Amino acid sequence: MSKIIPVIMSGGAGSRLWPLSRQAEPKQLLPLVTEKTMVQETVARFSGDIFFDPVFICNRLHTDSIEAQMAEIGCDVDALIVEPIGRNTAPCAVVAACHAAQKENSLVLLVPADHHVKNPEAFQSAIKKAASFAQDGYLVTFGIEPDAPETGYGYIAQGEPLGEGVYKVASFKEKPDVNTAHNYLDAGGYSWNAGIFLFSPDSFLSEVGSYAPEILTNAQLAFHNALRKDRIIELDKVAFKNCPSESIDYAVMEHTKKAAIVPCDIGWNDIGSYTSLLAARVENESDSAGNCTRGSVIVEGSQGCFVDTDGLPVSLVGVSDVAVIVKGGEILIVNLNESQSVKKVVKTLKELGANERL
Amino acid sequence: MSKIIPVIMSGGAGSRLWPLSRQAEPKQLLPLVTEKTMVQETVARFSGDIFFDPVFICNRLHTDSIEAQMAEIGCDVDALIVEPIGRNTAPCAVVAACHAAQKENSLVLLVPADHHVKNPEAFQSAIKKAASFAQDGYLVTFGIEPDAPETGYGYIAQGEPLGEGVYKVASFKEKPDVNTAHNYLDAGGYSWNAGIFLFSPDSFLSEVGSYAPEILTNAQLAFHNALRKDRIIELDKVAFKNCPSESIDYAVMEHTKKAAIVPCDIGWNDIGSYTSLLAARVENESDSAGNCTRGSVIVEGSQGCFVDTDGLPVSLVGVSDVAVIVKGGEILIVNLNESQSVKKVVKTLKELGANERL
Repeated sequence: MSKIIPVIMSGGAGSRLWPLSRQAEPKQLLPLVTEKTMVQETVARFSGDIFFDPVFICNRLHTDSIEAQMAEIGCDVDALIVEPIGRNTAPCAVVAACHAAQKENSLVLLVPADHHVKNPEAFQSAIKKAASFAQDGYLVTFGIEPDAPETGYGYIAQGEPLGEGVYKVASFKEKPDVNTAHNYLDAGGYSWNAGIFLFSPDSFLSEVGSYAPEILTNAQLAFHNALRKDRIIELDKVAFKNCPSESIDYAVMEHTKKAAIVPCDIGWNDIGSYTSLLAARVENESDSAGNCTRGSVIVEGSQGCFVDTDGLPVSLVGVSDVAVIVKGGEILIVNLNESQSVKKVVKTLKELGANERL
Repeated sequence: MSKIIPVIMSGGAGSRLWPLSRQAEPKQLLPLVTEKTMVQETVARFSGDIFFDPVFICNRLHTDSIEAQMAEIGCDVDALIVEPIGRNTAPCAVVAACHAAQKENSLVLLVPADHHVKNPEAFQSAIKKAASFAQDGYLVTFGIEPDAPETGYGYIAQGEPLGEGVYKVASFKEKPDVNTAHNYLDAGGYSWNAGIFLFSPDSFLSEVGSYAPEILTNAQLAFHNALRKDRIIELDKVAFKNCPSESIDYAVMEHTKKAAIVPCDIGWNDIGSYTSLLAARVENESDSAGNCTRGSVIVEGSQGCFVDTDGLPVSLVGVSDVAVIVKGGEILIVNLNESQSVKKVVKTLKELGANERL
């Protein structure tokens, strides 16, 4: 039986949770849902003897924080692979496969660092189910069983069954409009694409060679020419920069005949907005009116609000469905029905050249 | 012709504009509508040779600020009468009359320190119109011509005419319910009670003697036993405390046969809530979506919002009809349709014993 290397993709610095999440301290390094940070929560899901120690792929800015956060929870890290520049997930996956190929009979579990999973046991079961198919050469993705016609995610249509709860992938679907999303839900057999993959290094590298050879060549070169010191592997900048910036879906998964899917119900939440974050917190932290607050907060006659302050006290009166974030000298008030628009503020700050506020 | 002493009632420390307005720096001392503070705006309305220098009636805490603010605009202050304790407007009016009685042939114009008047010329015209009736012994009040069925104000019904645009008062009406308010508007002849009065000291004191002798006796005693130093007149605490705490309406105006009213359209706004404050500012300061902001503010996709920050930058996304106040280390977010409820936060802070935050 193969053992699994969790590879935690920790390179992101998204703008949708600004100002909670900042360039120097992005989402994955913050205790957003529980008292633990997202990367701490993430690695905790992969304990047990089917797993090797985790590998991180991250920005140089964040290696110290990741090491400190792993030390805090007593987690041994196998390696920290430093991306000199963001190149989307396909080059990242190639590098992960190159690293894993050094360990005989290992599989790569490629996971984002900043997702919340409410039922880690169900996730482990799904991983175990997927492992034998990955050993057989399938590139397995984990589909999230949809409970709403979300238009913010890609969908995966399942094809013929390969085994119990495992299917060939029929096709990947772009983020749909709301009617199409409704049709997917009515039809059944569609899952949200969560960007989580399990594969054997050899099989994956072989498929990349077929469908995205330029990524394969350059990412392999970046890995082989990397600077290595202790557990840190700094990818070669020139080679990595030469990788086309493509997602693993676009570069490989949409083309390969070896794509498989394990649909699963694991309480997944990508914490992709304040609305998602409130949904993840509301279960444990809300008052009777559905407000979730952290810090010094007074709430009067308000419903469904999310307040998080790192200092100055906040008083909220007669307001519904609003998030109020006070962090590092910034105050954001956003309608939770338009929480994706937070990135517009980030864009404005960039235009103003106010990089110190990002 | 008599000359008029503007007596600026500056004793309040309301809670409806917390945290902009604080105990140490209440509403009247703040530049709420323009760049000038409310007391600066107020005295500026009473320039011209029909007016004496203004008198303030205020709390001891605020005399220095008032003197500094008057010096800033080159306004000579006749006197600052210090109330040792709040006793509503009737004792305050008696003291004003006692002070004015020392100046031969003077009238008292009693005005709140914290109202906004958009058309000061119209206000002066109304005052001039009222003055001859005040000289004849009438206690004249200035009624605001209503433009909406407001339930937050008292109303005054006008009776028989005394002259052009001057009427006897038929009756004072408590704050009505919304149907009654609609009836007043439909019927005509009703004005909002703005708490502004013009009278001769002798006539007023005589009427108080008839209808509220306990107030007269004690307020007179408080004035005559006051400590006087430079322009500061500190009322005697024991005597002033013995005054029943009553409004000028309740103690005198509702009983006297000498009540007159001059209805006027002066662009009056009592700045009694953030909603009123936004209404006063919106004309000069709003963007095309009706948002008014002061300080470092980014607004995206928001309408009818009021943002005022004294420091930390605020970003507002997709929000409507909300006020955001950042002042002195406090952050308030309040629905402008429920802006009266700000006082609930103040009540909560009092219950928590957090007086330093008030």
